[in-house]
Amino acid sequence: MMTKGRLEALSDGVIAIVLTILVLEFKVPHLEAGEGDAELFSSFIHSLPVVLSYVISFLILIVWWMSHHQLLHAVKQINRTTIFLNGIFLMFIALIPYPTALMGEYPELRFPAILYGVIGLLCGASYYGLYHHLLKVNVDHPFTSNRSAVSFKGTWLFLVVYLVAIGFAFITPYLSVAVYAAIPIYFFLKKWDDWLPVTASRHLWYIPSLKSRK
Amino acid sequence: MMTKGRLEALSDGVIAIVLTILVLEFKVPHLEAGEGDAELFSSFIHSLPVVLSYVISFLILIVWWMSHHQLLHAVKQINRTTIFLNGIFLMFIALIPYPTALMGEYPELRFPAILYGVIGLLCGASYYGLYHHLLKVNVDHPFTSNRSAVSFKGTWLFLVVYLVAIGFAFITPYLSVAVYAAIPIYFFLKKWDDWLPVTASRHLWYIPSLKSRK
Amino acid sequence: MMTKGRLEALSDGVIAIVLTILVLEFKVPHLEAGEGDAELFSSFIHSLPVVLSYVISFLILIVWWMSHHQLLHAVKQINRTTIFLNGIFLMFIALIPYPTALMGEYPELRFPAILYGVIGLLCGASYYGLYHHLLKVNVDHPFTSNRSAVSFKGTWLFLVVYLVAIGFAFITPYLSVAVYAAIPIYFFLKKWDDWLPVTASRHLWYIPSLKSRK
Amino acid sequence: MMTKGRLEALSDGVIAIVLTILVLEFKVPHLEAGEGDAELFSSFIHSLPVVLSYVISFLILIVWWMSHHQLLHAVKQINRTTIFLNGIFLMFIALIPYPTALMGEYPELRFPAILYGVIGLLCGASYYGLYHHLLKVNVDHPFTSNRSAVSFKGTWLFLVVYLVAIGFAFITPYLSVAVYAAIPIYFFLKKWDDWLPVTASRHLWYIPSLKSRK
Repeated sequence: MMTKGRLEALSDGVIAIVLTILVLEFKVPHLEAGEGDAELFSSFIHSLPVVLSYVISFLILIVWWMSHHQLLHAVKQINRTTIFLNGIFLMFIALIPYPTALMGEYPELRFPAILYGVIGLLCGASYYGLYHHLLKVNVDHPFTSNRSAVSFKGTWLFLVVYLVAIGFAFITPYLSVAVYAAIPIYFFLKKWDDWLPVTASRHLWYIPSLKSRK
Repeated sequence: MMTKGRLEALSDGVIAIVLTILVLEFKVPHLEAGEGDAELFSSFIHSLPVVLSYVISFLILIVWWMSHHQLLHAVKQINRTTIFLNGIFLMFIALIPYPTALMGEYPELRFPAILYGVIGLLCGASYYGLYHHLLKVNVDHPFTSNRSAVSFKGTWLFLVVYLVAIGFAFITPYLSVAVYAAIPIYFFLKKWDDWLPVTASRHLWYIPSLKSRK
Repeated sequence: MMTKGRLEALSDGVIAIVLTILVLEFKVPHLEAGEGDAELFSSFIHSLPVVLSYVISFLILIVWWMSHHQLLHAVKQINRTTIFLNGIFLMFIALIPYPTALMGEYPELRFPAILYGVIGLLCGASYYGLYHHLLKVNVDHPFTSNRSAVSFKGTWLFLVVYLVAIGFAFITPYLSVAVYAAIPIYFFLKKWDDWLPVTASRHLWYIPSLKSRK
Repeated sequence: MMTKGRLEALSDGVIAIVLTILVLEFKVPHLEAGEGDAELFSSFIHSLPVVLSYVISFLILIVWWMSHHQLLHAVKQINRTTIFLNGIFLMFIALIPYPTALMGEYPELRFPAILYGVIGLLCGASYYGLYHHLLKVNVDHPFTSNRSAVSFKGTWLFLVVYLVAIGFAFITPYLSVAVYAAIPIYFFLKKWDDWLPVTASRHLWYIPSLKSRK
């Protein structure tokens, strides 16, 4: 009854908007009479944590989008549970701008870094919920041919990173931020050929039907 | 003259944006000199009603999106009336962030809970207006094969829930919130096979033409 | 080189966002200690002009979207000029939330009603610029078979309504608002069969190729 | 594994939202008791730099969208690097509202004009990064048949304009703004036939496969 086209469109829409409203963190400073470029520049320099948290969240969201894209692409069958689990995932994704703004405003405090990790953990948990549901419903999904991509260890283990970052916040929040910054760097540098079936990762062309892959 | 593709795209766009601007309710608190994590955490705890109203509205919107998706999917014919009725529906959907913000800010007051119910009622009324219009124009819509799905009682009765919730607000707004929270839970837990034609609900694959279902 | 699919997607995106950010006009009022439902309700009643300007702008935008949809649907050929003219149209459409907010905040003043009319006029002028460009490039567009739909009088005359509304604002802004409210009502009630070619308006099915219409 | 459809949808979404949130720069002025149309009009006149910076950014974004559209249209193969480079490009595009707002608020200062140029430079650098990556992966891209479209000089040279504008800001920011305003005017007036392969620029119809062009 339901097709994945509109589910993807809704997800793309939500992620695109989350990406873009991150810029609303940047506030135009109010200058007093007699103030000018020097004060504006100094206010910009003081807002560099806002820039950094913007960059981190933007790249982390691109990684989420890429994972979601790759997971949904090979899916043929969706149902009400898919929509529900996808909705829960989007609900946590849409929260990301809040801890991002907190972290940009109060970089020296622990609570923003912890909240950022908790939201990341919830995004991850809901993503893997959706992931394992989709692999169960779509038995011929390319991911299922890879042992570590379907095991509890091979998927949920990623979430330990967020737990570690939350723990680091109790030492210093700067360490947590370093972990958050490392997440997209790791994802873009990692060679993924060992994780995805070789045939799927070599042929990147637009293939309407996945049957030709076998 | 008009195709449903762009109508769905516009609706997906509006719902995706409504979902995402719900996060703008979360305001970064202003800390005074000397305040730190304790004050930030305590301000977060005090904003838990904001979190709750965010979660409720997000899930209710996913339910609306799912209903709209399912209704439009089997539609072949749209006209100016469809666009007008769909526009009215989106107009009320787009209002949801306002009572959500009010309810998050003043959880102990009655007016936010009442306004939330009134907006919900208007969303529902405009949805069923669109629903019955579409079933009239598309005589072979799968929903028409189910008696309760086309009867006044089987559709508009859902709206009584919002009327009850509005009534509850005069006792205590917390009771209304409980009803609003129950709506998405009910929708995701209910077995829908009895409501949708069996052939339609069993085959969830992407089917460009619906004729093959008969 | 360019396809209309992404041009439509961009336009749908912009219009969906404009529709949705209209709700940001509604501000959560700040209550003092001791204030409650009575004050919240009275603040809501005082914001009824905001509700009215929201409804008018929402419906006017739906009318713009419908016109844009219908115009683009039968278009086969786009070029850089199309993108430029469409961009100018979207630029004025995206301004609508500003005079809407002004009109909601200061309903008794003349300037908001005048600015609303000026923006409406600019939307209309850029729309008809795009309209006549597209009909020139796509000689077999269904609109070209209707004399009044291609004449200067038959299209640009619509803009006189905005000029009249701007003039009315110098008497009283409430008269202008009445004209703005009348625009979508007129568009949804008017019988359009005489304007669109009969074959095009009768067959509303999804037709990938338009050639079958001849 | 990945198709360009959703990459285009995400990019369209981000650019549509950036275009639309530019209007949030326009703030409803607060009138004191006894103030009316005169004060509202005078406040509007003082905000003309906001209008100008809105128009410039809107048109520059339409040019970026057009370039991105044209580049992606002929692409058949995308991979993780594409998504990463496209993400970096969108990250800088999504920043544009901030220097736009600064420039509208403080048109007489140098820093906003410089920051606007720096963001423009970063948009351009990331665009050409994506550009040369895509031409390397898609060897039959129409752009590759044109010598100047693939040379370092023919592409990166465009960025010199932003460097010049940044330099001008040290004389007067109004000169920089003139350069920024000239960018979209240049792009829309330039004859592009000499740059795109003739066959590609003449046939503007929707062509699902590009093979028929050869």
